[in-house]
Formats: sequence, structure tokens, C-alpha cells
Amino acid sequence: MPSSPKIAKVEPLPGDEAKWIEFHKISWTDQAGTARIWEAAARKTRGKSGVDAVAINTIIHHPSRPTSTIIILQYRPPADAICVEFPAGLVDANETPSEASLRELHEETGYRGKLLHISPTIVSDPGMSSTNMQFATVEVVLKEGDKEPEQALEDGEFIERVVVPIDELYERLEKYSEEGKKVDARLWHWAAGLRFAKTL
Amino acid sequence: MPSSPKIAKVEPLPGDEAKWIEFHKISWTDQAGTARIWEAAARKTRGKSGVDAVAINTIIHHPSRPTSTIIILQYRPPADAICVEFPAGLVDANETPSEASLRELHEETGYRGKLLHISPTIVSDPGMSSTNMQFATVEVVLKEGDKEPEQALEDGEFIERVVVPIDELYERLEKYSEEGKKVDARLWHWAAGLRFAKTL
Repeated sequence: MPSSPKIAKVEPLPGDEAKWIEFHKISWTDQAGTARIWEAAARKTRGKSGVDAVAINTIIHHPSRPTSTIIILQYRPPADAICVEFPAGLVDANETPSEASLRELHEETGYRGKLLHISPTIVSDPGMSSTNMQFATVEVVLKEGDKEPEQALEDGEFIERVVVPIDELYERLEKYSEEGKKVDARLWHWAAGLRFAKTL
Repeated sequence: MPSSPKIAKVEPLPGDEAKWIEFHKISWTDQAGTARIWEAAARKTRGKSGVDAVAINTIIHHPSRPTSTIIILQYRPPADAICVEFPAGLVDANETPSEASLRELHEETGYRGKLLHISPTIVSDPGMSSTNMQFATVEVVLKEGDKEPEQALEDGEFIERVVVPIDELYERLEKYSEEGKKVDARLWHWAAGLRFAKTL
């Protein structure tokens, strides 16, 4: 039985010690011609695709169950909480974002699907960092009696997958929040957009 | 006529020079009891609300126009591009996220509205940073002939507001992407959720 993850210490990270992220001091000239400085974080892992990460909206069709998606629950040290997210991951150095989407979906959830759509490159938090991503939609068609597949997690990865009927997603995210879990902003926005559509 | 913003130089930012953001080296123990290190970025500006930022979905009702929202276009140095976002901003030290939502909406768009809903605290990019936010929905009711209000921008802020019929939002974001603008991931997800709802 795994125990609860726990933070022992948070220290300042010297720039020359950082392996995964780095800080940039951007000297720029604004629209009025004034010289300014902007501070930004960046990932050091961006490969030749130019895209840091992907997130995957899985659409599961099943003959007798409601159309569902998959969300994942995992402890994230920066938030010191169980976070609720779409399956997601970094794009490998020589991979395309489309390839990364199908690979990450398989690793984190066990499911293999067909890529229906991938977004253009969108920016994750552009006031603070250069990180970017693409958002994939992957279709999984199940037959009656299909078993839930095995996840293909790496050593040291603890990821719980949850299949949620899309119609119940927003309420499920509200409930996770009430329990103290932290919902990823992008997943929340997707569910909020879906719910908002019902009011139009 | 403002000129195009331009980046002159990007340098490593030493941690002791950073005013707005900081790097954390998080020592933690995972679910198997293994000691690990996680690198994370954080904002230094979080106030007593515990929430870094807000974004605002404005719902504009008008007697003879389609229900619309407001998006903003502004140059963001970390992305080195014009970014397309919901109105958004940092929560001031002694402010609540609800207060910040109405203030930022007024400053960036000129509109004053009524707060209909605010989300729980959600996490912006939890694999890489501790930044968090709340997502507000604000209603603006216009009468026939109401004039577009004046923005209340601070000196040095160059923000273009665009009122978009909600039914046209997704296609508008696709078009901006094709033009080389960078759409914020949260705004994209909201529009994608809204569009997905039409397929159900």
C-alpha cells in the first residue's frame, strides 16, 4: 500500500542547479518604445517540435454506457496536493505532439485510441512562462465486455485514472475541489465551457 | 501610433535578482517512500487570499445582439507574441479574488458587471509551477444604444479588447492562431468545451 507523499523541505533553487526549468530575464521594448524587463520561467526540455507538452481529451464510446472521458489524479509537488488533470505529458525530443498524445494516453491510462484532432500550439500561462502545449482529442471505441486495460506507468509514477461520463464531469470536478484536490485550470475550463453551452 | 514590441535580449535570471517569480527546489518523499527532488516556479506576489490570479468570462447580454464574451489581445514577452486571453490579472495583496475579477474586468475592458460565479482555486500548470487562479463569470446587461465604455488601463499597458459572439468564439480563436497569435490554453479549453457540447 503506497503511503502519502510528503514535502520535507522547500529551498530556493539556484539557476545553475536547475535541470528541468530555467529563469529568463527578458529585455524588451514596449509599444511606446520604453525599455522594460520581464521575468519568465521556461522548460529546458523542449524538443524539435517546439511544443513542450500535450494534454489529451479521450472520448470513450461504449455500446451501453454514456460517452465518457478520462481524467487522472496524481500528487503534484508544486501544488502539494492531489491534482485532477487530463492525461498529459512532455513531448519527447524527436516526437511530434500527435505521437506524444497517443503515447502518453497509453502510458497513463492503458487505452489506445485514434487521434481525431489536435489544437494549434497554445500557451499555458503566458504572463509568467513560455511553456506551451497542444490539446488532443482521441477517440476510443469499446465493445461490450472489453476489459479495462493495464496502465503502462514508469517506475515511481503513481497515477490514478478515472473514467467519467462527460455529462457528469463538471459536478465531479466541483466535488474533487470540495475534497481538497486541486483541479487543473485547463480541465476546469473545458468542463466549464461544456456546462456553459447548456445555458445558451 | 504604437510600434511593435520587440525583445532585445534574453539572459539567465539570477534567483536573487528576481522580483516577481522564484524557483523552488522541493525535497519530497513519494508514495513508495523514495526521496525525490522537484523543481518548480512560483509567483512572489501572492497575497492573503492565497490565490495568485483571476480570469474573467464576461457574458454580455444585449437586446439585439448575440450573447457575447470579451477576449483581450496583448503582447506577452514570455511567448514573444500577441496572446489572446480572457481578461485576467493578479489578485492584489488585500483583495478577494471576486473583487479582483470586477476590478480587472473594468480596467482591461471598461465594463462593469455583476459576479455570477467564481470557481474554486484551480492550478495553472501544476507539473511546473505553484501558480493558481480562480475563474469568474461576470454578467453585463446592455441596453440598446449603450456606448462602448472606456478602458482604464495603467500607463504602459497596451491591451486590445474584442467583443465576440460566444457562438463564434472557437472559430475566432482558430483564426487568430492561423495569423500567428498565441491563444491562452485556458481560453482555448473553454471554447473547445463549448464547441464539444454541440457534438453530444
